[in-house]
Parts: sequence; structure tokens; C-alpha cells
Amino acid sequence: AAERVRSFGTSIFAEVSALAIQHAAVNLGQGFPDFAGPEWLKVAAIEAINADLNQYAPYLGLPRLREAIAATWQANGWRALDPAHEVTITSGATEALFAATQALINPGDEVIIFEPFYDAYVPDVVMAGGVPRYVRMRPPHPAGPQTWHFDPAELAAAFSPRTRLLFLNSPHNPTGKVFTPAELAQIAALCIEHDVLVIADEVYDQIIFDGRTHIPIATLPGMWERTLTINSTGKTFSLTGWKIGYVVAAPDLSAALRSAHQWITFASATPLQAAVAVGLEHAAERGYYEQLRVEYLERREVLRQVLHDVGLPPLPVEGSYFMLADISQTDCATDRDFCRWLTSEVGVAAIPLSPFYANHDDLPLLVRFCFAKKLETLRAAAGRLEIMN
Amino acid sequence: AAERVRSFGTSIFAEVSALAIQHAAVNLGQGFPDFAGPEWLKVAAIEAINADLNQYAPYLGLPRLREAIAATWQANGWRALDPAHEVTITSGATEALFAATQALINPGDEVIIFEPFYDAYVPDVVMAGGVPRYVRMRPPHPAGPQTWHFDPAELAAAFSPRTRLLFLNSPHNPTGKVFTPAELAQIAALCIEHDVLVIADEVYDQIIFDGRTHIPIATLPGMWERTLTINSTGKTFSLTGWKIGYVVAAPDLSAALRSAHQWITFASATPLQAAVAVGLEHAAERGYYEQLRVEYLERREVLRQVLHDVGLPPLPVEGSYFMLADISQTDCATDRDFCRWLTSEVGVAAIPLSPFYANHDDLPLLVRFCFAKKLETLRAAAGRLEIMN
Ligand SMILES: CSCCC(=O)C(=O)O
Ligand SMILES: CSCCC(=O)C(=O)O
Repeated sequence: AAERVRSFGTSIFAEVSALAIQHAAVNLGQGFPDFAGPEWLKVAAIEAINADLNQYAPYLGLPRLREAIAATWQANGWRALDPAHEVTITSGATEALFAATQALINPGDEVIIFEPFYDAYVPDVVMAGGVPRYVRMRPPHPAGPQTWHFDPAELAAAFSPRTRLLFLNSPHNPTGKVFTPAELAQIAALCIEHDVLVIADEVYDQIIFDGRTHIPIATLPGMWERTLTINSTGKTFSLTGWKIGYVVAAPDLSAALRSAHQWITFASATPLQAAVAVGLEHAAERGYYEQLRVEYLERREVLRQVLHDVGLPPLPVEGSYFMLADISQTDCATDRDFCRWLTSEVGVAAIPLSPFYANHDDLPLLVRFCFAKKLETLRAAAGRLEIMN
Repeated sequence: AAERVRSFGTSIFAEVSALAIQHAAVNLGQGFPDFAGPEWLKVAAIEAINADLNQYAPYLGLPRLREAIAATWQANGWRALDPAHEVTITSGATEALFAATQALINPGDEVIIFEPFYDAYVPDVVMAGGVPRYVRMRPPHPAGPQTWHFDPAELAAAFSPRTRLLFLNSPHNPTGKVFTPAELAQIAALCIEHDVLVIADEVYDQIIFDGRTHIPIATLPGMWERTLTINSTGKTFSLTGWKIGYVVAAPDLSAALRSAHQWITFASATPLQAAVAVGLEHAAERGYYEQLRVEYLERREVLRQVLHDVGLPPLPVEGSYFMLADISQTDCATDRDFCRWLTSEVGVAAIPLSPFYANHDDLPLLVRFCFAKKLETLRAAAGRLEIMN
């Protein structure tokens, strides 16, 4: 194998999913819904297949889908986008992240990543020859901030003349943090000062709680020209297997991204692009987004109660469909041991937090549960977890 | 933009497609069918969507699809494959080619490419930091071989201690050449002698004419352990927009490929994978492949006659759905001029051959027509081409 892939193991999601299957565990590991996506989107996909929208899409994506994304940004009051030059469809957010890093990072460029981080960021940077620089976020603390937080001085110190890019993920996987307007402004000021680009992974933008509003960092003053906003319709429409993602960025950044994208996958599944366009066109008027949040709020509350009741204190979730639980009161020395035990002995799969860190010193003892699950799945998990009492 | 993408223009297919739309030309440019894929595959996709196969597939691909690919290789008498370790699903052959090069090429490694070549190979090599070495194929000649051919001594001379990989594409796009058993043996012997890997792009394996049989180079003695065979169900099932490709390779090569693939797209569209599995399971028993060849034979003959009648002598097509025509008797000085004129003035879009070459000295004056088109489309093209008489 080539040097650039030699350090990679299997992703933690594949590993835990395999273990979950082996032990017939209730799977609260990998982040995907176990309920069906909206019937009307499935109907739209079926109509597209029957209408023979089954040949290559343009490599930028179907015009109708790019227009629907632009209309969504407009309706949210974020920005008027030019779908021809500022929106590009990719094969999921995974390809978007990969293509963006290939398009923008030269060997030796430094990239700032908040830790813990979504696991793909580091291999993306490594495969492009970049050098990750980590900024640790710290968990909520009884005596301190009630949310995950970082030290602005530490963030400022991470910038160097070699810094090319910063990854921002809000709502944040795995912590469930939603970056505050003040934090976004701090990050933006530093990126502007050091002329650094931002990859803003906002795939959970619609899954946000307690009256918070999602603010794309691209909408902050001075940020449009330096931000690639990445999204994925898989999370929003509970259809993770359709693999339709997209990137919104200024024309020159979009052009760079497209240069890479055309050779990475060329195009994404045509009938599913057509269906997702229908989804975006009608979601707001159908009240889909509100309903999504209401349903996730209920799931969040059920899981919170379950974890609390079995002595795994849950951390607050501001956005995303992930909840962390504190395992420091259990007998397990490591989060990996705990997850292995929980999956094989209790029959509930969860994801250890350590794979979301590069530096393993001083890690909090936390594990991640996904609540993108039917209430009956969460209740089945509850039933199994009861033996912990 | 990063160095690695700075040299890239837009692909010739995107360029010609845009021009074709602008001039409402009959599009015989980009290689995709303008007829519908099989009804029973569309039904299979619809069933998969309705069965809620809409969440992430395993990153290796659906087990059922990997098993169907193994069964196809078995039925063809090629090899008994282990679907768990030797078959990987990708987002089209495009991602397969990209992931394979990322997985195998280190900066400075040399890669042998027959010229003319499918346009993605060079950016794939460049993005992985490799150095392409070209071996020129020469067109059929009245006084020489009646097919595209290369000089075995030139091929041998292209190997060096730095050679890591060779691209083989048979049936070949854009020439329509099917490499002969003797040529395959020559190539295999050199790759074995120099310990070189092969990326075998065999996406047109089912579109082959005049009694020829497709021979995967991986089935030659000593080649299994050094070959990644790439295929795409888009060509075989006339559903290019579904973007389901795959790679067959020995376990260690598959493991390297998977290391890259997991971060490039992670997985491909689940319901379309399920449908393509059904396609592969039933294609042979339905006589689908024979029917495909019968239909393409008819299209090939229609296009051959049309080009012959208007004074654009067609070259023989042994496989693939592309036909080259000789434009040396026209007034145009370059193939690009000819294609621009043909698209805008005659109303028929074709692809110039020069973008399939790295070295532009001494090019034959040829253009590529795609005959993956309805007979009525080919006849419409004929009607427009008549003004050339
Ligand atoms: C691409 S698989 C990972 C799914 C996910 O987003 C997660 O579980 O964090
Ligand atoms: C991926 S678009 C190119 C389609 C094709 O294979 C060709 O026209 O050669």
C-alpha cells in the first residue's frame, strides 16, 4: 500500500457495527436512523427512476438540486447563492470533505482541528499531505462552563504562517455542541487575521434543540470568501444510504473543489439527486424540519432518562443526534473496554470517544450513543441496560 | 487551489456536452446510453427503496452485491472469489480508479499508460504524485495491422525500476480495441518481470463483438496477485447515473484499496447496490448479455454505415460502444476544430481524440462517436450529417 494510507485502520463505526451484529446488540453506535426516511421522498426517488433519470448527472450535480439548495439558503436568510458557480453536489459529505482537502491542501500545510473530531478529518488531511494541529475542547464541568468549550488563547496559538485551513463542525459530532455566536466570531476573526480557509461541516444543521438557531460560519462578515460549507441530505432526510452531499462556496473555492471532484467520483446517483431536490423544495412548507426536531427532542429525552437511570450520567446535547455518557463511575478502565463489554455482555452498542482524539493523554471517560433510533429501539436498549442497576 | 489540481481543466465530456446542449446537437459525445436501462432493474431499485434499504451500506458494499459479483466471475469461469476480502463496491469506476491510485502510488512512482487513454487516468496518477509514462498505440493501417497496436519493444522500454503500476483498458475507450491474448501475455510477462501492479479497467467487458471473448488479465498466470480489476455496472446495465462500480483484487490489494475508499466516499447508494445485485443475479439466465451485444451490434452497423456514407471513414470497433472516424479528408486542421464545427454547424456532437493523448506530436486525425444511442438517434444524426455529402 502507498505511504498515505498505511497508518489507517478500519473506522470505529465499521468495527462497532460488526461487533453489534456478532452479539445481536441494540445498535446505538454508528450514526444512522433505524427508521424510514419520509415516504414522499421515497416516492420522489421512485418517480425519478421511472422517469428514466438514470444516466450520468452533470458533474456539478443536477441543476434542479443546486437551485433547491440555493433556495433553501435564501429562505433561511443566509445568502443568495449562484447555483451555477457556488453549489456542487458530492457523493455524501464524506466525498465533500475529501475533495475539499484534496483541492486546497498542499503537502506541509497545517490544518487546525478541534479535538474531539469527526474521524474522517484526520485521514482527509493526511491523504492531502497536510499536518493536523489540534485544539482540545473540554467537556462541561460542574464548576465551569455547562457546555463543551475551548480556550481562545489555545486556539490563537494553534495558528502559524503555515496554517491553511480550519475544520469547524457545528452542530458537533461526537459532542453535540453547537458553537455559540461568540465562539464563531472568535474563530472567524482568527481565520481572517491569518488568511485561513474554513471547512464548515454542518451536516446536523437541522437537528438542533432548545431554541438554538444554526448559524453558518460562512454568513459571518469576511467569511464567505474563505468558507466551504458542507452538508448532507442523508442526516436531514434520514436517508444516509442515498449519499447525496453538497458544498456551498464562493466561485473560486467551488472551482478548486470541482477540479478535484470531477476525478474523484465525477457525479452522484442521478435519481436520488432528483428526489432530494424534491425534498428540499417541499420540506419547509410541509413543516418537515419542525417535525424532525420535535421527534428528535423526544428521542433525546428518552435516551437521557435511560442513561441517567442506569448510572451513566448523560452530557447535554445542543444539536446532532449523539449523546455522550460519563462512564467514570463504572469499573472499566477505558472507553474501549466499556464499549466492548456493553456490546457483548449487555447487548447495547455504543462508540468509545477515544477514536475521536489524536492525543490520548488526559481523556475524559465518555462514550457516544446515537439516538437516531425508533422509540422502541431506545426502549429495547433501556430494557437491556437495566441489568446495570 | 492546491498544486495537485492546478493543471486540470474541465473534462472534454463536460465541455462537449455543454456545447451540444447549446446547439441542440444530436449528442454522440459523452459515453452514456440515451435509452432506458432494463425495466426489471428499475423495478428492483424501486423495491429496495420501498423495503427501506436507504441507510448506509457497509463500506465494502452490500454482501449480496459482492456475492453476485463473485458468482458472475465463477459463472464466467474466471476465478472463485472471496466476496469478503476480494470484492469492494465503489461509487462508479471513477471512484474505483481514484481510490486504487491513491492506495498504491507513492510520490515519484512511475505509471505506464497506453496512449490514447481514458482521460481520468492521468489526473488519477497526478493526484497521487505519480509520474505517467506513455506507450503510444498506433491506429490500424492499410499496410499494417488491421487493429490498434503497440510496439512490444517500446512497451518493454517504458519499464524502469521506479515503475509501480500499469493501466490496461480492454475493451479500450476511445479506440474500441480489444487486447488480444498474445498482447495480454506480453503485458503480463513484463509486469511480472518488473514486479509491477496492473489496474485493469474492464468496464466494457460485456460489450464485445465478432466472436471475441473478454479475458480479464487477472486470470493470466502470475497476474492475480498483482491486478485490480475495475468494472462498472453503469455500462453493462445502461444505467450510468447509478454510479455503482466495483474492484476485484487479491486480499492485500483489496485491503489497500479499502483503506483509501473508506475515506473517499465511505459507501455507495444502498438501494441502487441492491438493484444491481438483482441485475447480476439474473442477467445471464435472462439472456441479457447476449441481447445487449445483439443490440449494440446493430447500433454499431448503423453508425458505421452512416459515417462511411458521409465520407468519414470509420475504424473497426472490436469492443466498447465507441467508434472512431477518420477526418483527415475534411477541411479541418484539428480534431477540436472539426468537433466544434460538427456540433455547432451540423448539429452532431462528437469527441475529439487529442484530449486522450498527453503528447500531441504526430496525432492521427480522428474523432470519437458514441453509439450507445437509440436507432432513431443514430438516424437523426445521419439526417444531419447528410449535408456533408
Ligand atoms: C460515514 S459512517 C459514520 C456515521 C456518522 O456520522 C457517525 O456515526 O458519526
Ligand atoms: C464519466 S463521464 C465519461 C463517460 C465515458 O466513459 C466516456 O465518454 O468516455
